[in-house]
Amino acid sequence: MSPKVEALQRRMAEVNAFEAATALMDWDHQTYMPPAAGAARAAHVSILSRLLHEMLVSDETQRLAEEAAEEAATDDEKALVRIVLRRLEKSTKIPASLVEEKSRVSSEAHEVWVQARANNDFAKFRPFLETIVELNRQEAEHLGYTDHIYDALTDLYEEGATKKGWDAMFDGIRQPMVDLVARIKEAPAIDNRFLFGDWDIDAQRRFTEMIVEAIGFDMKRGRQDTAPHPFCTNFSVNDVRLTTRYQEFLGSAIFGSLHEAGHGVYEQGSPQEWDRTPLSGGVSLGVHESQSRTWENIVGRSKAFWSRYLPELKRSFPGLPDLSLDDFYRAINRVEPSFIRVEADEVTYNLHIMVRFEIECGMLDRSLEVKDLPEVWNEKYRQYLGITPPTDSLGCLQDVHWSGGMIGYFPTYSMGNILSYQIWEQLQADLGDVDRLMADGQFAPILGWLQEKVYRQGSKYPPNELIHRVCGGPLDPKPYLSGITRKYEGVYGLASAV
Amino acid sequence: MSPKVEALQRRMAEVNAFEAATALMDWDHQTYMPPAAGAARAAHVSILSRLLHEMLVSDETQRLAEEAAEEAATDDEKALVRIVLRRLEKSTKIPASLVEEKSRVSSEAHEVWVQARANNDFAKFRPFLETIVELNRQEAEHLGYTDHIYDALTDLYEEGATKKGWDAMFDGIRQPMVDLVARIKEAPAIDNRFLFGDWDIDAQRRFTEMIVEAIGFDMKRGRQDTAPHPFCTNFSVNDVRLTTRYQEFLGSAIFGSLHEAGHGVYEQGSPQEWDRTPLSGGVSLGVHESQSRTWENIVGRSKAFWSRYLPELKRSFPGLPDLSLDDFYRAINRVEPSFIRVEADEVTYNLHIMVRFEIECGMLDRSLEVKDLPEVWNEKYRQYLGITPPTDSLGCLQDVHWSGGMIGYFPTYSMGNILSYQIWEQLQADLGDVDRLMADGQFAPILGWLQEKVYRQGSKYPPNELIHRVCGGPLDPKPYLSGITRKYEGVYGLASAV
Repeated sequence: MSPKVEALQRRMAEVNAFEAATALMDWDHQTYMPPAAGAARAAHVSILSRLLHEMLVSDETQRLAEEAAEEAATDDEKALVRIVLRRLEKSTKIPASLVEEKSRVSSEAHEVWVQARANNDFAKFRPFLETIVELNRQEAEHLGYTDHIYDALTDLYEEGATKKGWDAMFDGIRQPMVDLVARIKEAPAIDNRFLFGDWDIDAQRRFTEMIVEAIGFDMKRGRQDTAPHPFCTNFSVNDVRLTTRYQEFLGSAIFGSLHEAGHGVYEQGSPQEWDRTPLSGGVSLGVHESQSRTWENIVGRSKAFWSRYLPELKRSFPGLPDLSLDDFYRAINRVEPSFIRVEADEVTYNLHIMVRFEIECGMLDRSLEVKDLPEVWNEKYRQYLGITPPTDSLGCLQDVHWSGGMIGYFPTYSMGNILSYQIWEQLQADLGDVDRLMADGQFAPILGWLQEKVYRQGSKYPPNELIHRVCGGPLDPKPYLSGITRKYEGVYGLASAV
Repeated sequence: MSPKVEALQRRMAEVNAFEAATALMDWDHQTYMPPAAGAARAAHVSILSRLLHEMLVSDETQRLAEEAAEEAATDDEKALVRIVLRRLEKSTKIPASLVEEKSRVSSEAHEVWVQARANNDFAKFRPFLETIVELNRQEAEHLGYTDHIYDALTDLYEEGATKKGWDAMFDGIRQPMVDLVARIKEAPAIDNRFLFGDWDIDAQRRFTEMIVEAIGFDMKRGRQDTAPHPFCTNFSVNDVRLTTRYQEFLGSAIFGSLHEAGHGVYEQGSPQEWDRTPLSGGVSLGVHESQSRTWENIVGRSKAFWSRYLPELKRSFPGLPDLSLDDFYRAINRVEPSFIRVEADEVTYNLHIMVRFEIECGMLDRSLEVKDLPEVWNEKYRQYLGITPPTDSLGCLQDVHWSGGMIGYFPTYSMGNILSYQIWEQLQADLGDVDRLMADGQFAPILGWLQEKVYRQGSKYPPNELIHRVCGGPLDPKPYLSGITRKYEGVYGLASAV
């Protein structure tokens, strides 16, 4: 390796150590930390984040990156330098005072939001949201953009993304999804009540650990714990932490675990030699979500998967009735327009995202005033989902993102849904009868294909380039649309719309 | 607060954030970390430790401390500056190259020691121990001393301690303890076999959590997990982590939990306003050990304590026979000279420490060559405990400390034993019938007394000054000797030696 690139890599290993520390502190916060420890933990994370930021924007790091840029020879070295320079550019453009103010306001706004949601009190949250929108506007102006103010912010979460790109993505699916939901609403409802009960916690733990190991999550290089809001984090390629939760709905644990394990196998799939460097780990939120959704939905909600695991599920949960595979398959793929995004099914999910995306754009470009948010929110839910949230708690107050200062994040969820089907189409073309493999519990070829094409690439290529390399073209909603339509016509016995 | 002292405190809060990060990484390592994550974890800890050290020995920190020293006005401010200056002095005297070499050698030696102990292969460990002794000698020369080379090192673990002081301490107890052990060996052995079994893990968890909460460990500001070698750590006064282990011997979990909870209530007892400052937390290893031993031995192995908790223990573990309080009390206070320090009873424990202390002094002042260690070790075991270790694994290879580079640490264990009785004597003088309180499960007055006299003082006073304040004089083996003698004459039905 070029000595200058090596020097930059050493500096980034220091940055990585700070990140590992704050990530572990966050994992611990959400899993095991005692209730009274919050203030000290917040102080520690805040100090370490500041020291990390100071190290990152220092002249020394800038110098190391510029020198490395001149010497970088191999593709990997050039990629490493490119990733660092992009990060330095973002970090140095935003003044430290704005970073601090946004962090302070978000922290306060988050507490207020928790109260406001609990008490259905939008008026209380409104001034904080107004400030957050204003601070995000300022941030966007510092970052710069040529077309729409949204572009500057969403690029932070998904490199290369723009409002125009998201518009095109949503335009491709909006009407077909609204139509599909309407057709499903006409069909007889599916009964899934047998999935609700007082399920044994230990049995849920054992079953979910069994299936995430079955698909290839390596428990020697990771583990699963419980958290109120499941997430996946990692401190190295050899230390990937899943979380899940055990609730009345048996699917919460199963699909929560598979979802996080999808993120997990992506992280575990980076090359060992890239560990603790900027090349390691999933490349963007959207590509990451494509993998969580692949294992949760395309694999985990398939008939083939359950033809293998339903018998074991019945053995693990004697309280289940003697279900047929068809009954079970239909129950876990039940579609119903509902108020809460995180509980939404695969078909209505993107409609929840569209509402948020359109509102974010409006708040940023001032075509929508924050005071009108509840009204606009509810109107869009009527339009897309045919239902009206009875309260703001079940409406515009439900998500944590805005209270945390994050605007521009939501569309990456839909990108993940769409991309998951697009990548799966390629996988099927290469592997042939994938349903057969799943029914046989043969996940190694499936995981192996994804590792080779996606996971082993780490963050080397920008997301758009990775998608081109894997799929031979840009993000394309067609595989998603045809896949979802075919699947749910089957689930609901609808006449083919094609 | 004086602005200069405040500036120093802000700097030390940054140091504290690094310490919290590495402490959490260590806790996680010993509790939940996946097996393959070791290399990345070691790299992260090593980088953060280096950055911490660089921050500590920087000119900026030195300047802040010197300026604060001029302005410090209150007792608390002066204490804070004193603690920081002592730490800076120690840290700056040792060259970074020596710190790094010792860290590297210790890390390697630890791995070799694990193998050597498993294979009873002292020859393999010997060259590493020789290097460690040599590096410790160099460290001592950099730190400086006036009397014996041991003084420089042991002062790192126990401020103000010297070989001469430890000699005096051990001289005060050596012969009486050897004599007491000999008298006990003449008495009929106590049967404790009923304490060994396949005890339900969950019942052990519930019972130990119940008793540590009963004595006053606050689970809102802490928690208990399991670890192969139990320890207590903390990241703030409101985040104190205990660990325990569940083994065939039921006492492992019970006395392990009480021991760590003793460390824990000491840490939880620091004033809230000192949190994340150098004033917070237990003052030294010896004083800390006095509190773990108080709750483990003086409280946890008392008849009064079990008059309260034996019925609950029997309910929790139906596999126990229908014991009398006397039978149980005698069983948990069984004395038997044995090879392994960490399994030693309260009476023989200090004899194990004396062996190590004398050997450490000899290795450092070159009156003992490392190659002769096994022979000298076994000879001292014969002399003090009347037994000969059959292997080096059960002899001089048993402890982790030397392989980790630590020489000068062991005597603090004995100091803890001795000091626990000395402080308890004061407590009894103030509180009256303490047995009555324990039998009634009334630990609040006991904990309250210790909090007021010891825990709330944090690290404000040097250990010797704290002992004077609490006990009215220096460390004194008499209360320990008379307490232990009286107790075990009772347990073994010996005629009073007095």
